[in-house]
Amino acid sequence: MAITTIDGGITAPRGFRAAGLHCGIKASGKLDLALLVSDPPASAAGLFTTNLAQAAPVLVSQEHLAATHGVARAVVTNSGCANACTGPQGLLDAREMTTLTAAATGCAPHDVLVASTGVIGVKLEMAAVRAGIPQAAAALSAAGHADAAQAIMTTDPFPKAAAVEVVTPAGTFRVGGMAKGSGMIEPRMATMLGYLTTDAAVDPARLRRVLVEACRFTFNAITVDGEPSTNDCVFALANGASGVAIDDALEAALCEGFRTVAKELALGIVRGGEGATKLVAITVTGASTDGDAWLAARALANSLLVKTAIHGADPNWGRLVAAAGRSGARFVLDAARVRIGPLVLFEGGRPFDERAPDAATYLQGTDLTIDVDLGAGGPHTATVWTCDLSKMYVQINAEYRT
Amino acid sequence: MAITTIDGGITAPRGFRAAGLHCGIKASGKLDLALLVSDPPASAAGLFTTNLAQAAPVLVSQEHLAATHGVARAVVTNSGCANACTGPQGLLDAREMTTLTAAATGCAPHDVLVASTGVIGVKLEMAAVRAGIPQAAAALSAAGHADAAQAIMTTDPFPKAAAVEVVTPAGTFRVGGMAKGSGMIEPRMATMLGYLTTDAAVDPARLRRVLVEACRFTFNAITVDGEPSTNDCVFALANGASGVAIDDALEAALCEGFRTVAKELALGIVRGGEGATKLVAITVTGASTDGDAWLAARALANSLLVKTAIHGADPNWGRLVAAAGRSGARFVLDAARVRIGPLVLFEGGRPFDERAPDAATYLQGTDLTIDVDLGAGGPHTATVWTCDLSKMYVQINAEYRT
Repeated sequence: MAITTIDGGITAPRGFRAAGLHCGIKASGKLDLALLVSDPPASAAGLFTTNLAQAAPVLVSQEHLAATHGVARAVVTNSGCANACTGPQGLLDAREMTTLTAAATGCAPHDVLVASTGVIGVKLEMAAVRAGIPQAAAALSAAGHADAAQAIMTTDPFPKAAAVEVVTPAGTFRVGGMAKGSGMIEPRMATMLGYLTTDAAVDPARLRRVLVEACRFTFNAITVDGEPSTNDCVFALANGASGVAIDDALEAALCEGFRTVAKELALGIVRGGEGATKLVAITVTGASTDGDAWLAARALANSLLVKTAIHGADPNWGRLVAAAGRSGARFVLDAARVRIGPLVLFEGGRPFDERAPDAATYLQGTDLTIDVDLGAGGPHTATVWTCDLSKMYVQINAEYRT
Repeated sequence: MAITTIDGGITAPRGFRAAGLHCGIKASGKLDLALLVSDPPASAAGLFTTNLAQAAPVLVSQEHLAATHGVARAVVTNSGCANACTGPQGLLDAREMTTLTAAATGCAPHDVLVASTGVIGVKLEMAAVRAGIPQAAAALSAAGHADAAQAIMTTDPFPKAAAVEVVTPAGTFRVGGMAKGSGMIEPRMATMLGYLTTDAAVDPARLRRVLVEACRFTFNAITVDGEPSTNDCVFALANGASGVAIDDALEAALCEGFRTVAKELALGIVRGGEGATKLVAITVTGASTDGDAWLAARALANSLLVKTAIHGADPNWGRLVAAAGRSGARFVLDAARVRIGPLVLFEGGRPFDERAPDAATYLQGTDLTIDVDLGAGGPHTATVWTCDLSKMYVQINAEYRT
């Protein structure tokens, strides 16, 4: 098996077309409506937010996947409005988005999945959506992936797209994807919005299994601000256009393809997190249990004091020790170790302050690793990707929507 | 029973003296050493951080309270250095602080409690401490409470002190206190540093029980940044100098006195939180269990998106719903209610956006209340006090220690 990065994003796999345009939801005039269509009917799977305040499109997409037992033809997405906390009218609006898309693309409403992202508690501008969906359907093309990736953005500083080609003895298939961040991000079951496509043939149950597995260490292992949102979802569509059928022997190859694309998208979300200037991989080792490893890694990755120290390029390992110590995970101070990049700053109960200047220089970089061994002597480990916390995050979120 | 606010802070109860001075730990020249002494031996109790990386003074104070079964004569505190993660030398230094204080005040080392606050992982300047402690002992006075409250500060914008007089049929006693914040604050068993004194006579077991009870809805119900620290502790000293002995009948009066002083100090910590411009009481109602009420209240109070919205005076109730929905507490969207000040902005599944301008005006204030009913139909409720998140918090914590 060989995996190669290719261009083409969400429409790199054969049989997919996409479009993105401005229909009128965003006052800025930026793109705000995206359409993704699989020409053959595709197996479909979705992972949805665990937030108990699920948005209308999240509810409707789950209904449709249940009704079709995992088949879809299209995903319609608007940005600029989350259609969350919008009551019965919000549900009607989300359903109408699927009906309009079905009519414009020639399939049944149940074959359409729907997603929204933007401000919570605001009603959708349905007049704009009604005009936009047929326009988007008319604009569908294999080249439309770039517009689609633009059209799902909110505060994202750049679009997130990726694709790979997977060469196996049984044939070659492709995996494509796109995603958006960039605030209210600490997905537990999915991310804000993620889309994965493949032209492999995969039955729905297997597709769901592969999607769960691919998200575990990618979309589900990132955080910007520790806030799982009302609208998180990630969709996977598999249309079989490559002629390669995924069986037990090929499942690992599909999983690897999904994981490669999902990881690039997930890290893109963190790198483009609100106000972020640095991407940091925080790895916890020496944990007694898998749960402890994740607990400590998430506590470190969401600590305001850790994130601000990283922003200030301050090798303040004491804040790492403090966050690990209060995380709830088993932690043994005298056996713990803190490493910033290649430099051990705390080990065997004592600091190595002579290395602090080198660590400060290392932290000036933008792609960082921090390793904390809990000293609990166990074999368990977890990696969570996070970003620094800057004044710009505060500015974006104190001013957003006002 | 009548409770009246009085002047005099930590030394308002009879038989207590205090001092604060600059011994040389802080490069700024600000006060960095505080001494509190009870002339009669006092019953003593302490609550200590649940962080597994406990600082040396936290360990030593617990040892001493265990050895004396709850008696103390003095509390010595330095600021500018947390003496945390400092290994065996840190423990020696904390013990030496108690020995020096014992010699200077004429008691046994076990009768001295010790606390430190400041940067983690830095060794104490013992030369400065050795010179400072006898100087502080010589300066002890009933008027020294103000210097002591200054000398325990780190990034605190103002000192926190309070005192009350409690008049009961059995006699009159006083309760005094001081505390410091202002970052790494989300006490679970205590706060960064809190001190309560009383001239009532209380046996150690009762004193501990009253201290736990008084802290539950005060020091343990605040947050600045969700970070329980390595050094959190709160001490209570009761020296009996008023002649009023606390029995079962009077326990409630003592508890009310402690709670009144502790609440004023705790709210002072939040009001003076790093970068804070607003104090916000977040109350959760309608929770299925007491645990759910606290879970949701803490999630709301620590949400970066909630705290930045408050900073921007943005009545963004959607973020409150989202934070409650992902808190882990039972949450029923259609039965939930969000109130900002007196204004209901979301109820019965629908927004009341016509009230948003009034809510925005309300949020311009500096003392705010936010109420979220989880809609779970239960009788449980919790209030957590928090502050807004400003660019100044990021600046303080990106630049601190560098």
